[in-house]
Amino acid sequence: MSFTKENLRVLLATIEPVDQKIMAQAQHRLDNLTKPLGALGMLEDMAKRMCGIQVSLTPSVARKMILTFAGDHGVVAEGVSAVPAEVTPQMVANFLAGGAGVNVLAKHVGAEVRVIDVGVAVPVVGEGLILAKVKAGTDNIRKGPAMSEDEALAALGVGVEVARNAINDGAEILGTGEMGIGNTTPSAALFSAFLNLPAAQVTGRGTGISDEALTHKIQVVEDALAINAARCRDPLSTLAALGGLEIAAICGMILEAARQRVAVVVDGFISSAAALTAMEMNPTVLDYCFFSHMSGEQGHRLFFEKTGLKPILHLGLRLGEGTGAALAMNLIEAGVKILTQMATFGEAGVSPGEILDGSDGA
Amino acid sequence: MSFTKENLRVLLATIEPVDQKIMAQAQHRLDNLTKPLGALGMLEDMAKRMCGIQVSLTPSVARKMILTFAGDHGVVAEGVSAVPAEVTPQMVANFLAGGAGVNVLAKHVGAEVRVIDVGVAVPVVGEGLILAKVKAGTDNIRKGPAMSEDEALAALGVGVEVARNAINDGAEILGTGEMGIGNTTPSAALFSAFLNLPAAQVTGRGTGISDEALTHKIQVVEDALAINAARCRDPLSTLAALGGLEIAAICGMILEAARQRVAVVVDGFISSAAALTAMEMNPTVLDYCFFSHMSGEQGHRLFFEKTGLKPILHLGLRLGEGTGAALAMNLIEAGVKILTQMATFGEAGVSPGEILDGSDGA
Repeated sequence: MSFTKENLRVLLATIEPVDQKIMAQAQHRLDNLTKPLGALGMLEDMAKRMCGIQVSLTPSVARKMILTFAGDHGVVAEGVSAVPAEVTPQMVANFLAGGAGVNVLAKHVGAEVRVIDVGVAVPVVGEGLILAKVKAGTDNIRKGPAMSEDEALAALGVGVEVARNAINDGAEILGTGEMGIGNTTPSAALFSAFLNLPAAQVTGRGTGISDEALTHKIQVVEDALAINAARCRDPLSTLAALGGLEIAAICGMILEAARQRVAVVVDGFISSAAALTAMEMNPTVLDYCFFSHMSGEQGHRLFFEKTGLKPILHLGLRLGEGTGAALAMNLIEAGVKILTQMATFGEAGVSPGEILDGSDGA
Repeated sequence: MSFTKENLRVLLATIEPVDQKIMAQAQHRLDNLTKPLGALGMLEDMAKRMCGIQVSLTPSVARKMILTFAGDHGVVAEGVSAVPAEVTPQMVANFLAGGAGVNVLAKHVGAEVRVIDVGVAVPVVGEGLILAKVKAGTDNIRKGPAMSEDEALAALGVGVEVARNAINDGAEILGTGEMGIGNTTPSAALFSAFLNLPAAQVTGRGTGISDEALTHKIQVVEDALAINAARCRDPLSTLAALGGLEIAAICGMILEAARQRVAVVVDGFISSAAALTAMEMNPTVLDYCFFSHMSGEQGHRLFFEKTGLKPILHLGLRLGEGTGAALAMNLIEAGVKILTQMATFGEAGVSPGEILDGSDGA
């Protein structure tokens, strides 16, 4: 785990924007397909962006991979979750056995799932588990920083390395995933810090806590923000002070994917906190990010409102793991197929330009 | 085409609600899967309803079929569309050649597409085309009724028969589709009539017409409603007066699917007008309908607001053909797989009840 501040600086400096020229060419093709202009909405937008990402008019997202990072959170000692931390390793075992939601949905869309222990509190083993524990869970953010900057860098480095290996193994599109009991609390703290929003607006019910417990959780987030205020000088120090090991790893994964011009599908509330951290480090990463869904967790809507980003799905999902990312990958693939497989006006013998900006075939 | 009023009466009388008992059992299983209660949102709701529809805890939607009905509209003579009626048969040929949006998206989700000429204005032939023309396009609804009640019944009967054949051939879930230049105009008229909404609120830009042309289109819809007011006595007579042949066929398809306890995924704005007609005939059909998406066409949002129904996707689609239905089928299948393939707490060694109503894995 020798990922350093200098490594991060170089990584951030080597992220380049998507190719606008090829996107203009993609738009031209989209406009010549046998449909009214723009009639396939976001499918067209996503296909065009995939062209800009892969610098190709025939992008491929056939090889899909979801990277699910697991980590624990010291702040669970404050009673912020209805679920005990023991569930984190139990769910890791469930991922490895193929029985979790992300396994089912990944299989449905033809994606591989890789599971990484970047910070589970207890030792975890299991066939296929990627062992990259930086720390046995974060410290309690109500009492001090979640981790040191070196630990945050190490967790970032895990994300970078796992993403690099996935891409080396052929992944053409990556999905983020996470498991960590308590991780809506650090995520809410990060949203509050980066978006300048009061804790009460970005803190939700997580595992289904009561009104009373929610009031308490908001207080915990406020206290965490207050005690760590002086530590939050820049995105990295804020991530270290308030974040989580899996959140840092996802942040690193997003940065590396962007550097290598590989699309990343961001899962839900927690993954968005990681993506927000990456955006704060270098906004160009957004060129490579697709936001899979609007989570049921309070605060996610504000994230989209504040950033102007648009989620792909609105299904009331709030499971995490990478479940939303899996479903959204399938829609991005549908968009790419529209671009590459649909007939143009010329090919189909429909007079070009006859079908204009239309609606429902008429 | 000997479908009669009596056939319709019997069909409507034999539609039964979904099985609530099996849905309660499905809910019990969903609540025991390794995730917080309800954390997979609409996926869970859709899976549960599929159980009620098929009266099975292991419903199957593996065999998917989209039925795309084509018809023309006399009202295009009023200049309501930016696209000439010649495009209807050209697009039918495109469907048969596999080059249209619906072909690409159906293939993506593993669905078959069947194309039916129920009312194209000119003769159309092509390999695979189902020939069931009731009338060579409707009459101009600004001048009088679109068709006679007997013609509407015949078109309904086509939908019934095509759905029946699809189900006999093994279809486990059906998607509606349509092609008909001008068909947002009769659809707007039906929404206005059935939902008691002013024409201006449900009439949109269709093929991308200008502000001026939209004002004219609204006037056309108002005139059509006025001249046909006395004819709109019940759902069938309203459908005959204001509707379209493909709209009537989709209405029949939905009724037959409901009678046979087969799920129907309703495509966009025009298909929703057909579904609304079916609902007016017998609201129990709603038990079998899934609404694939919120169309970009104005008026669709009001349909959902007025009926309280919830669309699955919000991708800004406005192509029709069955494109939205194809994508939504894939999400229904994902929900079914969650129900049938995910591990329960017991199976996974996660203590039952530990994970409660949660958010993003924490």
